[in-house]
Amino acid sequence: MNAKEILEKNVDLLAADTGCCSRLPSVARLRRAIELVKALLFPEFFDETVTEPSMRRYSIGVNLDRLHAILSEQIACVADGDADAMALRFIDSLPEMRRVLLTDVEAVLANDPAVDNRGEIIFCYPVILAMIHYRAAHALLKMGIPVIPRIITEMAHSATGIDIHPGATIGEYFAIDHGTGVVIGQTCIIGNHVTIYQGVTLGSRNFTFDDAGLPISRPRHPIIEDHVTIYSNASVLGRITVGHHATIGGNVWVTENVEPYGKVVQARP
Amino acid sequence: MNAKEILEKNVDLLAADTGCCSRLPSVARLRRAIELVKALLFPEFFDETVTEPSMRRYSIGVNLDRLHAILSEQIACVADGDADAMALRFIDSLPEMRRVLLTDVEAVLANDPAVDNRGEIIFCYPVILAMIHYRAAHALLKMGIPVIPRIITEMAHSATGIDIHPGATIGEYFAIDHGTGVVIGQTCIIGNHVTIYQGVTLGSRNFTFDDAGLPISRPRHPIIEDHVTIYSNASVLGRITVGHHATIGGNVWVTENVEPYGKVVQARP
Amino acid sequence: MNAKEILEKNVDLLAADTGCCSRLPSVARLRRAIELVKALLFPEFFDETVTEPSMRRYSIGVNLDRLHAILSEQIACVADGDADAMALRFIDSLPEMRRVLLTDVEAVLANDPAVDNRGEIIFCYPVILAMIHYRAAHALLKMGIPVIPRIITEMAHSATGIDIHPGATIGEYFAIDHGTGVVIGQTCIIGNHVTIYQGVTLGSRNFTFDDAGLPISRPRHPIIEDHVTIYSNASVLGRITVGHHATIGGNVWVTENVEPYGKVVQARP
Amino acid sequence: MNAKEILEKNVDLLAADTGCCSRLPSVARLRRAIELVKALLFPEFFDETVTEPSMRRYSIGVNLDRLHAILSEQIACVADGDADAMALRFIDSLPEMRRVLLTDVEAVLANDPAVDNRGEIIFCYPVILAMIHYRAAHALLKMGIPVIPRIITEMAHSATGIDIHPGATIGEYFAIDHGTGVVIGQTCIIGNHVTIYQGVTLGSRNFTFDDAGLPISRPRHPIIEDHVTIYSNASVLGRITVGHHATIGGNVWVTENVEPYGKVVQARP
Amino acid sequence: MNAKEILEKNVDLLAADTGCCSRLPSVARLRRAIELVKALLFPEFFDETVTEPSMRRYSIGVNLDRLHAILSEQIACVADGDADAMALRFIDSLPEMRRVLLTDVEAVLANDPAVDNRGEIIFCYPVILAMIHYRAAHALLKMGIPVIPRIITEMAHSATGIDIHPGATIGEYFAIDHGTGVVIGQTCIIGNHVTIYQGVTLGSRNFTFDDAGLPISRPRHPIIEDHVTIYSNASVLGRITVGHHATIGGNVWVTENVEPYGKVVQARP
Amino acid sequence: MNAKEILEKNVDLLAADTGCCSRLPSVARLRRAIELVKALLFPEFFDETVTEPSMRRYSIGVNLDRLHAILSEQIACVADGDADAMALRFIDSLPEMRRVLLTDVEAVLANDPAVDNRGEIIFCYPVILAMIHYRAAHALLKMGIPVIPRIITEMAHSATGIDIHPGATIGEYFAIDHGTGVVIGQTCIIGNHVTIYQGVTLGSRNFTFDDAGLPISRPRHPIIEDHVTIYSNASVLGRITVGHHATIGGNVWVTENVEPYGKVVQARP
Repeated sequence: MNAKEILEKNVDLLAADTGCCSRLPSVARLRRAIELVKALLFPEFFDETVTEPSMRRYSIGVNLDRLHAILSEQIACVADGDADAMALRFIDSLPEMRRVLLTDVEAVLANDPAVDNRGEIIFCYPVILAMIHYRAAHALLKMGIPVIPRIITEMAHSATGIDIHPGATIGEYFAIDHGTGVVIGQTCIIGNHVTIYQGVTLGSRNFTFDDAGLPISRPRHPIIEDHVTIYSNASVLGRITVGHHATIGGNVWVTENVEPYGKVVQARP
Repeated sequence: MNAKEILEKNVDLLAADTGCCSRLPSVARLRRAIELVKALLFPEFFDETVTEPSMRRYSIGVNLDRLHAILSEQIACVADGDADAMALRFIDSLPEMRRVLLTDVEAVLANDPAVDNRGEIIFCYPVILAMIHYRAAHALLKMGIPVIPRIITEMAHSATGIDIHPGATIGEYFAIDHGTGVVIGQTCIIGNHVTIYQGVTLGSRNFTFDDAGLPISRPRHPIIEDHVTIYSNASVLGRITVGHHATIGGNVWVTENVEPYGKVVQARP
Repeated sequence: MNAKEILEKNVDLLAADTGCCSRLPSVARLRRAIELVKALLFPEFFDETVTEPSMRRYSIGVNLDRLHAILSEQIACVADGDADAMALRFIDSLPEMRRVLLTDVEAVLANDPAVDNRGEIIFCYPVILAMIHYRAAHALLKMGIPVIPRIITEMAHSATGIDIHPGATIGEYFAIDHGTGVVIGQTCIIGNHVTIYQGVTLGSRNFTFDDAGLPISRPRHPIIEDHVTIYSNASVLGRITVGHHATIGGNVWVTENVEPYGKVVQARP
Repeated sequence: MNAKEILEKNVDLLAADTGCCSRLPSVARLRRAIELVKALLFPEFFDETVTEPSMRRYSIGVNLDRLHAILSEQIACVADGDADAMALRFIDSLPEMRRVLLTDVEAVLANDPAVDNRGEIIFCYPVILAMIHYRAAHALLKMGIPVIPRIITEMAHSATGIDIHPGATIGEYFAIDHGTGVVIGQTCIIGNHVTIYQGVTLGSRNFTFDDAGLPISRPRHPIIEDHVTIYSNASVLGRITVGHHATIGGNVWVTENVEPYGKVVQARP
Repeated sequence: MNAKEILEKNVDLLAADTGCCSRLPSVARLRRAIELVKALLFPEFFDETVTEPSMRRYSIGVNLDRLHAILSEQIACVADGDADAMALRFIDSLPEMRRVLLTDVEAVLANDPAVDNRGEIIFCYPVILAMIHYRAAHALLKMGIPVIPRIITEMAHSATGIDIHPGATIGEYFAIDHGTGVVIGQTCIIGNHVTIYQGVTLGSRNFTFDDAGLPISRPRHPIIEDHVTIYSNASVLGRITVGHHATIGGNVWVTENVEPYGKVVQARP
Repeated sequence: MNAKEILEKNVDLLAADTGCCSRLPSVARLRRAIELVKALLFPEFFDETVTEPSMRRYSIGVNLDRLHAILSEQIACVADGDADAMALRFIDSLPEMRRVLLTDVEAVLANDPAVDNRGEIIFCYPVILAMIHYRAAHALLKMGIPVIPRIITEMAHSATGIDIHPGATIGEYFAIDHGTGVVIGQTCIIGNHVTIYQGVTLGSRNFTFDDAGLPISRPRHPIIEDHVTIYSNASVLGRITVGHHATIGGNVWVTENVEPYGKVVQARP
């Protein structure tokens, strides 16, 4: 067969339906939306629209308008119900979201001797990027919006190596150092003042399957209480509870409850 | 020295030959090629060329033409032989590649309770991105094309943290969850229905060196038989065989054969 | 409240000062600067300005001029002192930086059986990308320039999963294989001919706090002497010394000194 | 007043309503639409989508799909009625539009000694650009679509200096040489085989006004019969008839009927 | 000589100084500035920043901030004195500029039977584009800013074929129909309610030269009083006065004063 | 018929061959080439590559390399013969082309009281843009390269309204004021120190036809000797000679020889 024939044959083969279909949002538009969220949450750092600081109020107005338009349009792609109202509810949650993110900044500052100002943390630290995406995605998921939250957390996963499921519940003053390889599963519940390091998995152990043989989503990830620290590459698995003020050492594999103030470390060679 | 003198001095120093040279493809063009591959494999998800679904056949024709042009041109940059014929052979393998990738989608669906539709997996899951890049790169490598396959898998490595060497052999129904930190070495042979988690290394233990002191490429990575599951951060190293239906626990270090249906877990503290 | 009222209310709330402020550089301009650094260090690979190799001298001149302009401007955003002179000092260090990076290329070649030419390493291997960013960032940090070095290493962290603090000291012939999840802390001192694998942490154990309760930056990361090899996912923590020619096995957790020629491996199950 | 005060004062002043409002299309989208029209009418010249000529059928399909989408969307911005049906009617007129435009190409070839191939005329001559825009705009105007036709002819006016009102009626084999300054008014009727030169005005003399004092649109521009030639900078004004095979000399001012085969020339000094 | 030698020889020749030098603004930035001016004068037509009309106030604020920044920066490139203050004075003149431009819109509406709404005139008519550029350029010229006004009117000249010198003085209710080829010289003074057609020149007849033999700029273009109409391709030359309510016919050449209510027409053949 | 049927029917109709074909260059690449020509001829005005004036030599080298590459590639699209050698010959003519263009700048300065510095003329005057395009196109045409010269002069025609055929011969110290509507035909011969104004046509009167009925290209446009001035909208037609130091008045129509020092003016009404 010559080129023309090979190309035409494959047009026919590839035009066949894959049977996979979905109401899909636009990744490019969502990327724009999350940039607007960043610019609204931390305009001093991510909003380059205006030159005069005294005019920032106007750029916030413009950015809110744009976010409203993009979110309404994208939510309408994937969800039934009043997309416009959901977009407005999300917008209405931004001031509180900023307040909580600033507690995360405090937690990073308190845990990393290599940095001494909040601005550098907001501007350069992957954990803050990951937490902005997570907290925005979580807010959208709570309204019942499908697919979009996952796309938003995957953007952060790709950029930072931190994989937080938008369904997880995470308290205030949350810090992740370095972050590459961190996995936080869908049904995790994390308290306040928790710190984790790179490579930590808060995962599940095993699944229940339905009659069709597909796994069922039920609570299967850990509960981490307040003031817990988990060191690098530790795996905490299953619906267990790590009590407040506990410490989990690096590289360990934890599948049972840990007492408050408990310490778990690796067997030494 | 003033600015002019410093700049001019360094022009001379930097114009010196580094002694490193190569026939090089264009990363930007290869990025475009792989986008076309994605749009051809899953047009419902990644081909935004046409608006009317009934006209998709035309956009597939256009995308095949472009892929043909870019691949021929880029293969000719790095390989001797009939670049055009190699590009056409690659194109001719796309329908089968789609069939195999859809088995990977099934495997993910069967392993992750957090998702219940194939569309979301294709559209957002890093493992599918990694497998598209790997399967395309592997097809090109098998034709003897250098450098390009590696560039294609590195694109996915950068985006997902999943590092699969294009030389590895991977069967059908392959699932990776989360994925950050996964390494699959050049001479791995992986069967069907294998599932691995984040941070898993399928690596080598040690090398043989040639007379010039450089390491030799020979089979040095594991063979993973059908229906094996390997949990997060486990390392399976050397030319060992992990028998079918075996399970490797998280964070363990495996350097010897594992029996079919065997289980390897970490020593508990 | 209707849309207008919700939007206007949130303009006011979001216009409130976050109290975080900083003299900030432009990430986009720094990205351009580092592309110029790459094009100057390895023009055969990353400088596509000219077509005729005999004219490359001119493109080097142009790229030096642009780098000079962008660096001066960006350094002036964050540092007091003579930004222009600092930019010129950086430029003046490029030829030596190239020499050292070529030793890293040699080290990769000597450690990876899957590759047999230097060009492919420079062009596609994440470790070289990470080392270009680190060595450039380190040079800027040594001049006392804040924030910019961290932004430059974070770019590489995001692209490769390799997180090297710009303050670390790293010798020649340094190789990292795969790299995802590698963390090299601020006060690490690494000798020559050191090789590490994916997931290795060279981290700290605990901090000293100041009167305000914030952690203090003092030497708290390991010293790795010449010819050390550290396998995947190992954690080496605290201000300990790993003696020359020592080997650290995969997945282990090391918090005490290791003798020269020593070997540390995981307890087997 | 300081900068802030001046800016804020003018925000208020400029936010006042101008009282001018309109249902407006997007100029950028219409520009894209007309590029698609060009690519569909003369794919050998303006369609760079595909590389293989044998695949052009696919790019025509894709371009038709896009034109359909953009036109429907833009027509819906300005017109009531079935925008989709109007877009399809326009598309359905393209093959005949191409046939007529090819007669214009013949007419240019027969009139300009400086060119000897049709390809150069289609690819570079301003008259063909102007006629594509006019003939497309005229087809849209005949369906009753407002504003869009005018925008399309103004694009050509800006690029070529040829100002043809979309309401004019122009026959086949129409040639304009050079073209800058040509004006063809709204109610002109032009036969076949008419040739005009730069600076020619086919305009109106005076208007009738309505009760509000605004001018009324009624037939007020010339009728130019077949085989007429009008030389540079001539003005032919009012609802007069220039008979077939007549010649109008350069720089003259004609306000009365011209006999068939008549000649009008300027009084000599 | 081979390619290398020819190229290098011409580097030397072309690096020689041309002796022409100037403090130059950036054309791209001025183009952006004039787009902002359009968006501020007629936001309903040219400001696509916000989606909700109720949020337009914010986009006006943002656009004023940007215009302020760009104009200050560009004025500082070419003029001594307080560039910031000049930019603010320009901004402060925008509301009055809008009022005058709306009189021009009225004049077009009253003179063109082919249009019946103000929106279409503002959005598509070349005369309004030309008048926005002229009125903005004139305002800048009156502050003594060099070069920039000319660049701004040349942009409109290129787009519309209407060449108005920024130094000309033009009253209210000014209409130009079609416009290609219109020239209005530096020292013209034009009253209110004046209408001109395509190809009209309001030019000079001859110059006075200085001792160096260069022409001197002094009043040398016509004064056109209120309510004058000048038809297509007429040339009105020299420091003459065309009295109020006069009419100048098409294609005529006028070099002497015209009485109020006078009529000048071409000698008929 | 429904949308799908209408679209598919028209795919077939539009896929039919138009019978017009040509070896075609890329307009976008030629636009880039002419930008490089401008940057090389007047780097102080159009070359923004480098920041430090002392580094301009390098940007000239880079621009020459790029121009060489683009021109060779584009000439090879349309002409047989050694495209590379032709590109180099063109490059070798640039220094002389600059010298001649600087005489045109002098001529403009000597003719326009509204400007007093050379920089403003080079940077903003449409005549200089038109002359750069013409002189470059003429140089390419003299080497026998088809189509490209015409595309280059049409770019200037579109931007300035000045239509100079690349085949015309034009001496030094050539000035055009305003320029819109100027036409200079293919076989014109223009001496030194000639000045013309807007709307001037140097055209042909009538053609000779070949046996196929197509017009033949032979000398048919005027010869304009040194020191001639031609005022606005005048038409000079046919192979006549306008003697040195003659003056042609505005709006006149000249079809017979004019004596040296002669004056031709319009009949007055």
